[in-house]
Amino acid sequence: MNDTIVAIATPNSESALAVIRISGDLSLDLCKEACNVPYPTPRHAYLAKYTSLEEEILDQIILIYYENGKSFTSEHTIELSCHGNPFLIKEIINDLIARGCRIANPGEFSYRAYKNNKIDLTKAEAIAQLISAKNKQALSLANKNLNGNLSEKINLLQNKLLEQQSIIEAFIDFPEDDLGNDQILQVIKSLKGLNAEIKVLLEHAKKTDVFNRRLNVAIIGPPNAGKSSIFNKIIGSERSIVDETAGTTRDFIEKKVQIGSVDVNLIDTAGIRDTDKNVENIGISKTMELQKEADLVLLVFDCSLPFPEYINSNLERLINNKNLIIALNKIDLGKKISIPELKLKNAIEIETSIKDIDSIARLHSAIEENLLGPSKTYNEFNLSVNLRQSQALQNSSNSLEQCISNLSTEDSIELSIPELKDSIQHLGEIVGQTDNEDMLDILFSNFCIGK
Amino acid sequence: MNDTIVAIATPNSESALAVIRISGDLSLDLCKEACNVPYPTPRHAYLAKYTSLEEEILDQIILIYYENGKSFTSEHTIELSCHGNPFLIKEIINDLIARGCRIANPGEFSYRAYKNNKIDLTKAEAIAQLISAKNKQALSLANKNLNGNLSEKINLLQNKLLEQQSIIEAFIDFPEDDLGNDQILQVIKSLKGLNAEIKVLLEHAKKTDVFNRRLNVAIIGPPNAGKSSIFNKIIGSERSIVDETAGTTRDFIEKKVQIGSVDVNLIDTAGIRDTDKNVENIGISKTMELQKEADLVLLVFDCSLPFPEYINSNLERLINNKNLIIALNKIDLGKKISIPELKLKNAIEIETSIKDIDSIARLHSAIEENLLGPSKTYNEFNLSVNLRQSQALQNSSNSLEQCISNLSTEDSIELSIPELKDSIQHLGEIVGQTDNEDMLDILFSNFCIGK
Repeated sequence: MNDTIVAIATPNSESALAVIRISGDLSLDLCKEACNVPYPTPRHAYLAKYTSLEEEILDQIILIYYENGKSFTSEHTIELSCHGNPFLIKEIINDLIARGCRIANPGEFSYRAYKNNKIDLTKAEAIAQLISAKNKQALSLANKNLNGNLSEKINLLQNKLLEQQSIIEAFIDFPEDDLGNDQILQVIKSLKGLNAEIKVLLEHAKKTDVFNRRLNVAIIGPPNAGKSSIFNKIIGSERSIVDETAGTTRDFIEKKVQIGSVDVNLIDTAGIRDTDKNVENIGISKTMELQKEADLVLLVFDCSLPFPEYINSNLERLINNKNLIIALNKIDLGKKISIPELKLKNAIEIETSIKDIDSIARLHSAIEENLLGPSKTYNEFNLSVNLRQSQALQNSSNSLEQCISNLSTEDSIELSIPELKDSIQHLGEIVGQTDNEDMLDILFSNFCIGK
Repeated sequence: MNDTIVAIATPNSESALAVIRISGDLSLDLCKEACNVPYPTPRHAYLAKYTSLEEEILDQIILIYYENGKSFTSEHTIELSCHGNPFLIKEIINDLIARGCRIANPGEFSYRAYKNNKIDLTKAEAIAQLISAKNKQALSLANKNLNGNLSEKINLLQNKLLEQQSIIEAFIDFPEDDLGNDQILQVIKSLKGLNAEIKVLLEHAKKTDVFNRRLNVAIIGPPNAGKSSIFNKIIGSERSIVDETAGTTRDFIEKKVQIGSVDVNLIDTAGIRDTDKNVENIGISKTMELQKEADLVLLVFDCSLPFPEYINSNLERLINNKNLIIALNKIDLGKKISIPELKLKNAIEIETSIKDIDSIARLHSAIEENLLGPSKTYNEFNLSVNLRQSQALQNSSNSLEQCISNLSTEDSIELSIPELKDSIQHLGEIVGQTDNEDMLDILFSNFCIGK
């Protein structure tokens, strides 16, 4: 692993500056031989000339050397700031390859930082999250994890579990101890408390998820209810074709949009029609497919018309326990609709008219509020839990519950130990104590080049 | 001019790193207040946390402070390396604006460097050239100018001209000096020598031009001679539509391609047809237009056919003193053509067949060789002269010639002084001694953001 890797760390297009990052044993030689800076002071920015093996000056650069043990990767590392010219960058990187470097894989710098114990997996993932965060909340949560908040929490849980493990082991080894049963009851109580803490983290995962990925909002309803007009008003453009003929929106149209602090994929679906008195047509089946992926369904009706019977009879399938907002559109034409209350009792109703921008603003807020749910005050979270981490937490909790169950029956107390060890090990997966090369490959290959 | 400017210096898209550059009086305050690095050692790379005015940590960054007088702009400067996330970059830049910075204009950092006498105009232009260079030669020449080679040459010429100016002035002030006429003859000799040096630089301009811009190569010829096939073989793709019907290429097709070390805009024109026995049709007029812009004309004939008479009669207009290569194409079908030698005596002839890749390679080399001309050994040039600089050199030379002419007649010796001053001043425009705000605006506004 001591080969020297090189990659451009900035996007490869014409610009003022580009940064080329190099990590590995050749770094110091390169300072001397390619940049004529033989004994660089660590972290000092040198103005230097990059000279190729053919002794051509390729560029005036800023060279910074980071000493091993103290660099991001913990290896000897250099960063070259050169002019942002793709041709020039290629020339320099080719020269570095000729001098013995090889092109880094995506995420390989972070992988080396992890392998050299400079960062754990939660911090590596926080870096990736920092690069892809699209709103303040995601950014804030990423920074909290980069600060080590999740690692600390996991380490604390592990230590507490290990403590309980040693008590159980002592109990098994010295069964003569009189206080045995009380002790086991105490252990069970502690383990239940720790399991509750894991479950709180799992709740965190659900609540912080909204900031870490794009959420799907599907606009569904009968033809000509004004779905596309609402879609357009929300995205603030004329992307959808709007006309008065029913069924203008073929298949579906989607658009990425920021609704408040939430990244949304807004999907305008084809109207659900009562063709052949049978809702089972192509339109509905595509809409049902889109609805399955939706985090929120926005059901739009023309409220100047009665509630469409063919929708009523399929309502449960259509809504399918999804978060729901009902837009009673065309309110400027008067309100004749009556919403079947029983089936839709938890839905938020908003009266809208595309002629009334305030009503659209209310709809906008309702969508944000609904998506954020109880996560609105994201500052309550001092850490973020992603999907991979939450799976490990779930596995840890499952093992812990099995452990508790085993402890509760005198005959199976010994069986609790492997379960408890599993629980601890699953927590270890979160920070990366266990080497799972396949998982690491997948995790780091999603990183940027040069990171 | 002491306001503090900020700009992203790297391309604004998702990547491992981005660099934000700040120049101006606020820099030191920003180190302390936004990055919690109150007394930064100049040029030391600090790992820091960027904290917004709202006291939110936005990112873990690398902060480098460059002290005034020693930075690129000569002002207090900082560079922040943050994670390459456009949302994050926007947050940081917005926070910097809230703290009193303003967004820099394109080229404003370089403009400040120029205004603060850190670089002259030739070096500023060399930086822009470094960023846009598309081949080794352009890169090498840009580095030579960034090194100051052109500035030094210009300064030397100015000093020598000033020396002669003082001799002329002494002659005018003290006409009693016996050696007067000999002295003036000596001055004329010196000035002629200096004018010759300026002319050498003008020749440099012509010769280095080939490396500094994309050259136009127009492929011209009768229909069905194989122009598009040759075009495709050169660009190595199937971009042009090739079929056996005469006149397939409507209007023209162009493609950017690197031919050896030269950046070329290869243009495939419509075949020149003998419609109505009159060459004056739309095809030829468009082709003539393209030919006017061409640095090289590649004339393609089907050499298995006789030389087309309607082309022969328009040959001079068609070639118009352009650099010329004749491809005798379809040589695999045998050679019947006879080229009218008198009119095309300087043209290079290459026998080609698209079935013979070696023949295409020879054509390729011939194009490169012809375009490079005597510039092939670009290493002979230790500086580069661009269009703006060469115009100033031409003006300087014109004034100098007028000065010499005035010196040659006793009555007009005094008139030589203003001409000589003009000549010196025109040289000064090259390095930027004279402030011409309009010219500076145009020059720097073509720079990258953040440069």
